[in-house]
This record gives sequence, C-alpha cells and structure tokens, in this order.
Amino acid sequence: MIIVMRYGASEEDILRVIEQVERSGCEAHLDRGVERTIIGVRSGRHDLSPESFQRLPGVADAVRILKPYKLASREFHPSFTRIGLGRFEINEASFGVIAGPCSVESREQITETAKAVKAAGAHALRGGAFKPRSSPYAFQGFGEEGLKWLLCAGQEAELPVVTEVMHPGNIEMVARYADVLQIGARNMQNYDLLKEVASVGKPVFLKRGMAARVEDLLLSAEYLLDGGCGQVILCERGIRTFETATRNTMDIAAVPVLKKLTHLPVFVDPSHAAGYSDYVMPLALAAAAAGADGIMVEVHPNPAEARSDGPQSLTFPSFAELMESCRRVAQVVGRQV
Amino acid sequence: MIIVMRYGASEEDILRVIEQVERSGCEAHLDRGVERTIIGVRSGRHDLSPESFQRLPGVADAVRILKPYKLASREFHPSFTRIGLGRFEINEASFGVIAGPCSVESREQITETAKAVKAAGAHALRGGAFKPRSSPYAFQGFGEEGLKWLLCAGQEAELPVVTEVMHPGNIEMVARYADVLQIGARNMQNYDLLKEVASVGKPVFLKRGMAARVEDLLLSAEYLLDGGCGQVILCERGIRTFETATRNTMDIAAVPVLKKLTHLPVFVDPSHAAGYSDYVMPLALAAAAAGADGIMVEVHPNPAEARSDGPQSLTFPSFAELMESCRRVAQVVGRQV
Amino acid sequence: MIIVMRYGASEEDILRVIEQVERSGCEAHLDRGVERTIIGVRSGRHDLSPESFQRLPGVADAVRILKPYKLASREFHPSFTRIGLGRFEINEASFGVIAGPCSVESREQITETAKAVKAAGAHALRGGAFKPRSSPYAFQGFGEEGLKWLLCAGQEAELPVVTEVMHPGNIEMVARYADVLQIGARNMQNYDLLKEVASVGKPVFLKRGMAARVEDLLLSAEYLLDGGCGQVILCERGIRTFETATRNTMDIAAVPVLKKLTHLPVFVDPSHAAGYSDYVMPLALAAAAAGADGIMVEVHPNPAEARSDGPQSLTFPSFAELMESCRRVAQVVGRQV
Amino acid sequence: MIIVMRYGASEEDILRVIEQVERSGCEAHLDRGVERTIIGVRSGRHDLSPESFQRLPGVADAVRILKPYKLASREFHPSFTRIGLGRFEINEASFGVIAGPCSVESREQITETAKAVKAAGAHALRGGAFKPRSSPYAFQGFGEEGLKWLLCAGQEAELPVVTEVMHPGNIEMVARYADVLQIGARNMQNYDLLKEVASVGKPVFLKRGMAARVEDLLLSAEYLLDGGCGQVILCERGIRTFETATRNTMDIAAVPVLKKLTHLPVFVDPSHAAGYSDYVMPLALAAAAAGADGIMVEVHPNPAEARSDGPQSLTFPSFAELMESCRRVAQVVGRQV
Repeated sequence: MIIVMRYGASEEDILRVIEQVERSGCEAHLDRGVERTIIGVRSGRHDLSPESFQRLPGVADAVRILKPYKLASREFHPSFTRIGLGRFEINEASFGVIAGPCSVESREQITETAKAVKAAGAHALRGGAFKPRSSPYAFQGFGEEGLKWLLCAGQEAELPVVTEVMHPGNIEMVARYADVLQIGARNMQNYDLLKEVASVGKPVFLKRGMAARVEDLLLSAEYLLDGGCGQVILCERGIRTFETATRNTMDIAAVPVLKKLTHLPVFVDPSHAAGYSDYVMPLALAAAAAGADGIMVEVHPNPAEARSDGPQSLTFPSFAELMESCRRVAQVVGRQV
Repeated sequence: MIIVMRYGASEEDILRVIEQVERSGCEAHLDRGVERTIIGVRSGRHDLSPESFQRLPGVADAVRILKPYKLASREFHPSFTRIGLGRFEINEASFGVIAGPCSVESREQITETAKAVKAAGAHALRGGAFKPRSSPYAFQGFGEEGLKWLLCAGQEAELPVVTEVMHPGNIEMVARYADVLQIGARNMQNYDLLKEVASVGKPVFLKRGMAARVEDLLLSAEYLLDGGCGQVILCERGIRTFETATRNTMDIAAVPVLKKLTHLPVFVDPSHAAGYSDYVMPLALAAAAAGADGIMVEVHPNPAEARSDGPQSLTFPSFAELMESCRRVAQVVGRQV
Repeated sequence: MIIVMRYGASEEDILRVIEQVERSGCEAHLDRGVERTIIGVRSGRHDLSPESFQRLPGVADAVRILKPYKLASREFHPSFTRIGLGRFEINEASFGVIAGPCSVESREQITETAKAVKAAGAHALRGGAFKPRSSPYAFQGFGEEGLKWLLCAGQEAELPVVTEVMHPGNIEMVARYADVLQIGARNMQNYDLLKEVASVGKPVFLKRGMAARVEDLLLSAEYLLDGGCGQVILCERGIRTFETATRNTMDIAAVPVLKKLTHLPVFVDPSHAAGYSDYVMPLALAAAAAGADGIMVEVHPNPAEARSDGPQSLTFPSFAELMESCRRVAQVVGRQV
Repeated sequence: MIIVMRYGASEEDILRVIEQVERSGCEAHLDRGVERTIIGVRSGRHDLSPESFQRLPGVADAVRILKPYKLASREFHPSFTRIGLGRFEINEASFGVIAGPCSVESREQITETAKAVKAAGAHALRGGAFKPRSSPYAFQGFGEEGLKWLLCAGQEAELPVVTEVMHPGNIEMVARYADVLQIGARNMQNYDLLKEVASVGKPVFLKRGMAARVEDLLLSAEYLLDGGCGQVILCERGIRTFETATRNTMDIAAVPVLKKLTHLPVFVDPSHAAGYSDYVMPLALAAAAAGADGIMVEVHPNPAEARSDGPQSLTFPSFAELMESCRRVAQVVGRQV
C-alpha cells in the first residue's frame, strides 16, 4: 500500500500515519519528495485496508498497489495450474465439460444421465446430494444415499464425480464419494467451510457468489490455497443484477479477467447463469470463445420432471448437440474438448 | 399458484399440466371459464416454482399467489413477535439498540465499550469472536477466549450479548456465552447453519445477504421458524450495488416492506451499510424514522486502532450523541428507546 | 492526479508518462523520492482519466486526488446554496416540500391538487406536461396546454411550479410557465439538454439517473453550474438494483454523502423510489431524518384513476398526514417545514 | 393482461376492476369459473400497467400476458429484419463489423483508421463528432467539422459511416453525413430524440442504457418502429453492476434473449463493455459465438494518445487479429464475416 500525504501535511500528520502502520504490525517506509511525502507500507501477511488511512488528517489518498491475494495471483505463480479430472487433464489446450443433473434423484436417473453425457463426450459427472434451496420446503437432496448412486453411476460410466458439500461435518463423508468437491455460490464466503475443505486433499470446484466481485472470488480461492489445497477450479455462474430476463447475469468478461489475474482454471456454468435451457447453448459457446477452460452444464433425462432446476436443464439430445458445437468453437481458440 | 392456460389450449395441454402438478405431490384444481381455463395449485408444504410450468405448451402464465414463506408471513401470524433482550423488550412501542465493537479485541476493550454503551443507553452488547473476513490474512477473531471476555463485559454492564456463529460445530459453544446468536450476511443462505442454529432455543439475529432480495431474507427466516426458533430478528445492513461512495447501499425501504410482510422485528445496521462513521448517524436516524424496531451499531474505544471495521466505528462520545438523537426521532414515530 | 511509478521504473518509463501528460495539455510535476518517483499532474480545466496511465510501463498506479467536479464541490464553495421557491427559501434550517400529481391531467385535477397540497403546507407544486414513458403507447402528457393549467393552478394556490423539460427545443416555452425546471432521471446524462437548460436563468431540479453514481450526479450538476446556472437542486429518487419489492432502491445514504461533498440542496423523491404509496411516508420521514433539504412527493385527487404513477401517489388526506409527521421529524433535526 | 380475483371476491370488487379497465379505454372480458373469476383485458394500443390493479380489493394478481412492445416483437413479425450497411447486408448468415475511433480527432486520424479497418475487413466506420462525456471539462468532439472528416474518410475507404446524434436540433445535419444514426446508451430513454430520429429515414443503431432491462431496450426500439423507422440495430454494450474489474458488465445472455424476442439485428460493443483493450478480443469472440449479428469495436492509430476511451481502443494490428479470429468463430456458428 502507498499512502500519499497532502501538500503541506504536517510532521505530526506524518508521524500519526507511521504509528498507525506500525501498530498494525506492518513496516512503514518514509519517502520525502520535494513537495509531497509518500509512505510506503510493507504489510507482509497482514491485510491492511486503505480505508483505515484515507480519512486521517493530512492524507491525500491511500492505494493498494499489490493485490490482496498472493497464492492465487498469476504474478507470483505464472504457470497455469493443471488439474486432472480422471483421465482428462484441464490444461491450456483442453476444454473440460462437467455435466449431469442438478440433483441426484434416483439410481436410474443418475445412471442413465452418466451414460448419456459420457457418450456425448463429457469428462466428469455432476449431481447434488445436498442441495442449498432458498425455501425450506423445497427438495433438499438424498444425502449419502444420493452420493452412493452418484459414485456408482460415475464408476459405471468411467467418469469422475463432482458434488457439492455444504456442511463442515459432512466433508469427510462427501470426500469418500467425490473426486472433486464443489463449493456452491451461496457458500463462497463460508470461510470455515473453505478452510476445512482445503485440507481434504481433493480438487475443489469453487463457484462465484451472486454478489462477489472477481477479487472476492480470488480471495476465497486464497483461503483454499492457503489451507493447503492447490487444486482449485474457479467457476463463473452469473451474478445478481437488475435484469430479470435471465436467472442471473453471466459475467462473461470474468473469464478473461480471471485468466489474466490468476493461474487457476476458469470454468463457466451457463445453466445457472441462464436459468432457461434455450440460452444454455449460446452461453456455453460464448464461454469457450472467451477462453474458458471448461463448462459445467445441467443435463436431465426429463427436465420437465426434474425436482430442481428443470427449466434450465438440457435433454440428452440437446446436450449432445452442445458438445458438438463446443468442440468446434474450442478448436478455433486452440483447445480440444 | 395459478396456472393460466392460453385461449384455445388443448385438452392434452391441460392434462399435461395437471399431471405435472400431481407428480410433484400437489393438488390441481381445474377451473374452466368460458374462454380460458385456470388451474389452481394447492401445494401444501411443497415449494413449486412457476418457472417449471411457464414454458409448457398451452400455458399462458404461471403465477404465485401465496408467498413462498408461511411462518414468517404476517398474513398467517398477524401479531408482532416480541423478543426479550435481557430486561428490554423489542415490541411495537420500543426501539432497541445493540452496540459494541466489530471484533472483541481484548478484555479491556470490550469491558470499556460495554460500560460506555450501557451508560449511553444501549440494550445489548455486540462483539465478534469469530470473524468472516474476505482475506485469509485478515484478523479472524479470538474465538472462545473472545467469547469469555464478551460475556464478562456483558455481565458487568448488565447487558445481554449478541455474537456471530459461523460454524455448525461451534453453535453449542457459542450458545453457552451468547444471549442472541447472530447469522452474518455471508451466511444468510448457509442453510445447514440455519437449521442447526434454529434448534438451540435462543433468539437469532439474521442479517440480510448482500445479494438477497427481501423475499430471500424471509425464506431464510422461514428455515429458522420451521426449525423451531420462533425468535428471529431480521436485519437490513446494505446490499451490493454499483454505488461506491458507501460500503454497501442501505435499502431503507426494506424496513416498511418487511414490516408489512412479516411479524418479525426489523433492525438496521447503519455501520456496515455506510462503511464510514460520518454517515452512521444519519442512517441510524433514517432507520428510526422509517419504522425500524431497532439498530445495531459498531462502537470502539479508539476506532483508528480497531482490528476490523475501524473506519465505520463510532467513538464513545459520538455514540452517546447518536443515542440522544435516536431517542428524539423514535419518539416522533411513537417509540421509546 | 498523482501517478505513482513502480520501484525501479526506468527513466524512459518516467519520460513516457510525462510526455503523455503534457500532450494532454496538462502540467507534469516530477517528484523523486529515494525509492519511488511520483508524478503530480495539474490538469487545470482538462479532465484526465487515471485509466489512461494505469497500464503504461513502469506505472504502479494513477490516482485522482481531486474530485472531477469543482463548482459543485463543497471544498471550493463551502457555504450552502440557498434557493428560493416562491416565498419559501431552501436553506440549512428549512425542509421544503414539492407536491403534486405525476401528470397534469385536467384543469380541475391540477387546481384541486394545488389547493389541497397548499392547505397541507407544501411549498411548491409539481406536475408533468411532457412525460418520458418507457412505452410509446403510454400517456405522454398534455404539453403546453398542461403547462397552462399548471401555471394557473399554481397562481391560484400561490405556489411556484416545478415541471420537467425533456426537449431542448421546448426549454424556452416550458420556462415561460415554470418557476423551476426539472431534469428527469432518464435525462440526467443528456448533456446537451443540461447545457441549454443552464442558460435559462431559472433554478433546475436535477434527478439522479437510475444507474448514476453520486459522482455522476455531481458531474451532471457541474454541467449546469459551468453553464451559468447556480441554482441547482439535486434529487435522490432511487437507483436500479436486483430488489423487486420496490420500484427502485432508495439510496438514503446518498443524502449524507451529498451533503458532505456539495453545497447544493439535496432533495429526495420517495414516491418514485418506492413505487407504492404505502411506503412513501416511511421513506419521506427517513429522508427528513437523514438530513435532506426537502422532498418531492406525488399526490393525486384519486390515485386509482391517475393516468400515470397511480400506485405510488398519495391521496389528499394521506399527504396531509405525511406533512404533519415530516414537520415533527424535521424539527428533531433542527429544521422547519 | 389478466386480472385474477381472489376466492370469494365480492361482486363489488369485480365491478370496481371492470370500471377501472374501461375508464382506461380498454375492454374488460369477464370470465367466471366455479371458484375464481378472471378478468381478461384487451388493451389495444393502450399501455395498462398491472401495478394499477394489483392492490385493488379482491384482486389476487394482475399479469401481463402479452409483451408491452408489439412492432419489435418476433411474435408479430417473425422474419429477421435485414439491414444494409453500404454493400454489406446484415442478415442471418452474415456477421457485421463496425469499427473506428471513439472520437473523430483529426482528418488524418480518421482517414488512416478508415483505411486500416477497411483493409482488415470491417463493413462500416464509426467515429463520434458529438461526445456525451460525464465531465463538462472533457473533450466534447469536433461537431460538424468532425462529421465532414468522417464522411470523407468513409468515402475514400468505401465504408458507410455510423455516428452518434445527441441533440434533436442536430439530427438533420448529422443525417446529411451519416449512413446510420447512433443513439448512445445515455440517450436510450431520451424519447423525444428517438421520436425525431425515427422520421429521418435512415437506419438507427440503438445502444442499451446502463440501467436498462432487455425489455426497456425493446420499448425504446418500439418508439423508433412506431415512429416510422423500420431499420433498427440493437446493441448490447454492458450494464452497470457492482463489478469493478471491467468498465461495465457485458450481458452476453442479452444476445440469445433478444434473438428470441425480436426480429431486429443484435450487435455487441465489447469495447465499452470491457473498458480495457486486453478484454476486447475475448468478448468479441463470445459475442460471435453467442449468435450476435455483429460487433462495434473501437480502433485508434495510437490508443495512448486518444482523446477519449484510449484504454479500451485496439491498435490496427490487434484489430486485424480480432477480425481474423472473429471470422473463424463466426463460421462455426454459420456466419460469414
């Protein structure tokens, strides 16, 4: 951080700032120019906010020069983080596809879906057994039984499985079934969950919260990285805005922004962003064209009967079509599906 | 929910809708007009979303008539829910004030603050021992030790204490020290936490999430009520918008909207909404004038040295001044501080 | 603006920045510290954006130190700008109320309303003759005929009139009838309109746009001030967010923020913010409590029959009640209605 | 619109609704079911808002069944509206590219740019001579002189020109030079401007406002269509949200949403959406992949010296690269650049 003093700030003003910097355990470095004084702050592992300095007497402005995240930053770790999804590797030349139903609803439903998405070329199977639902009266998932069905379906179809964990008390159990642990949008800032998931030793699929800036997403990733989990996949899934024609507003620019700022893979979930199946294909292709490392898509044998997210789920044929188009767009930007 | 069929929808279209309603465990009630057919849906405890019907063939629209929350609704429970804060009662004629530092930083800091806010007339003491911080490098709170200091300070000053719980595994422990359990904005949709907090038997202070609509807040309250906790205090604390002059955008209209929709008390947290101490007083007065049942305010012996939220914390004298002004505004709208 | 160079920025980097500053017609002032070099920029009347410098090689950051507006700033013009509304003066100790229908619908309607709001204590009469409507099929106002009715009604009731002007070609005509010219939210960034309205010599009532930051509002005011209009009243009327329980989200904090940044009077329009008459009273009282200099409120003899904005219009009795409550809240914060 | 009465609504309630419908010049059509009564409303050219009915006694809900726009709707006009840009035609199988500087800054600058973008394959030249700038102190454009340079540059390069018109008084003059008239984001709801531009007989390029829902954009298009201008190109250019990593948040889903709702061509402006040149290419490709009919891109001979929007402008070589990549992505989705 750099604190810029006003022209004519007094010695007392300068000292007050230095004292406050040092009280916070950071190092202040005074740099007197002819007209202005600048105080550089080396904060080490401390997180010092510019706001605490901006209103002190004599201060013109306080500005963060370094990003507040370090381990997630591409500056400090320039090479892309490759992550394995079963035999598939997420890397600079691949485009990963994770597909499956919103919720695991029955052994048949998930087995059938696993086969279909595998046949169409997906690399991993998704399916929720613990569902965060806005209403307490909505279907909340089949819990461990659902995980068993999911794992079986994945094994039969030779697909690694991705599933959400919501409760710190369930992490160990979920990790017994899952290849990749998903943190949902509503839990992106559930820091205790992040800390505990980080120590499991499995890749984490981290979804952006509805009100999270790109920087917040990277700070949540930083919790995982700092906690020992080096394998984090970030996922843009739409933010909440005033537009009501779609369920969320997909922030497609987050893809190139994240690719610039971080070395972690960046996925997109067009299903939650859109909310309606008609829009999933164009958004998936946009993600591929914008340079995403992959997508997560909701697919259901019979969307009209889905117990959650039916309106945004693809049928098997429309998913196969999507795979075909993704393949061609990905190729144009130098990637293999 | 009511499903309105298009003019000229076929019998097949109508049957398809009825089947889908019944498959979801709900009751369909057919009502044929001369030109249009309407299908009324009695969903009982099931949460059926209009979206699953809007795109079926022959359907003109599907509209929720009842609110998706029931226990939190004023329609079903017209009388205001009074909640005790120590000897103080939150009711239609009172205006409650919960005050204290963002974080409990030391025994002295919290004891001193407790005395000061008590002297100025506060009804409860706040203070965080578990802090949800965007950065893993920021101060995360003193945990159980902090709770001990908080409880002592509260007892000495004869103030009940309000503190945040973030981890389901800590609920029991936190509940041993706290009179009221706070769910923070970032955890408003952490449904597992809500379910477990609900069964503790203590009042819950539920903060609105940064991207939560009023309806989402009420649905989260519904989780608490449905889980057996009848004593829920709702808290508006600002939502995230494009405006950057304040930390969040305080949605003052949420106060009358909530007062109309629910029987639960509605508090406002002007400190987090503003982000800067200069704006806390006007926002607190606005809350009182708009009919809020109380406020939660951050107060610190020396805001410049606070380990979190310093820029938005009030000093002791400015808090005393705020209490004085609140008293007078509250009186105008028929309430006693 | 201050441009902070990186540690170890080369002489070439520094020169490049200085050249770019000077090419833009501004003055660069080099200030070498021991470790860092700072380039101060005196931009005079030029508006230089930090973004044009942030990505140059060797630049750590570029920060605006001065506000981009000058004439509107309280720093340069500390004393409050008092504005007369007929015999009433908007000043530090008063609280102004402008009331009337959304649209002027008939001579009777506006005359009747003028009398009623005058009797209740309003200081000015509002009424639209040119209506900016989202749909081309909605009622667009009675034009000059409506202005005549408005003026007559104002004269009879001894109330100055405030009315919107949308088209540069109509400014002169509207100014013949109006005491105060209103710029609507949709035209806040219609800069040609602002420039031409500025030269009329009448006070301007400037509404905040739905996507405007406080800073944008002040920049639009700067157009008026720079164009020769010293009498500008700013008006917060709600911004667009994801919340759908109200028509817009009233940014109550904009009141203290604006009071701090500018010397211009700050009004609030609770009617457009709320969208529903039930919420107008609490929002009006919140505005008074937060330190606003006044409010603009929609009142209609029979809201159910209004040709625009009926749902948010107050009846005569509810407006009288609002005036009574405003009077008492305003008094608490040291103002006279 | 359909108005659904509550179970047990009285005859008086029903009559009140019918009267209000008829007073508004619409036709009410009563439809009594066994349990519920529905009132269908035929509104003709009138725009009736559901809000005016929702709070009447006995009303359960009022719902719009038809879109509020008609001429812009694909339902009423299923075939795509093809628009000529010089010899190029915007149609279902083409992908149009409009390129050029933000502002016309000199005869040389625009001539040079015209040649470069033509050589790279652009179909039209953009360039502003009247610039809507947030600050009155920012460069406001060269006016008619700029238009002359623009026209010359276009003619030399054999490119039609697109330029913004801001002032109704300038429409005629601007139309003498421009092939396509642009309405900027800040003027999307400047209805008087829309009405007058509509009658010129030239295609209009209509940009989405920063706070405009897709529906608002279509209603603004409806003003143009209703005013006699059948050749309207819609343009998504980013909306304002809480994200600050980009200048605006590009709503990529608006492309498929608009393609579904309307027959008008849909363009995307990745430059204003991004705000930084690094992100323009991925956003342009995303637009092509999502099914847009074309893009508008800012290009400048020397972005560092641009008098406006430099940070988001492409150089000539990067524009040529963008064209090449767009060509390949467009081809995948069945379009020819």
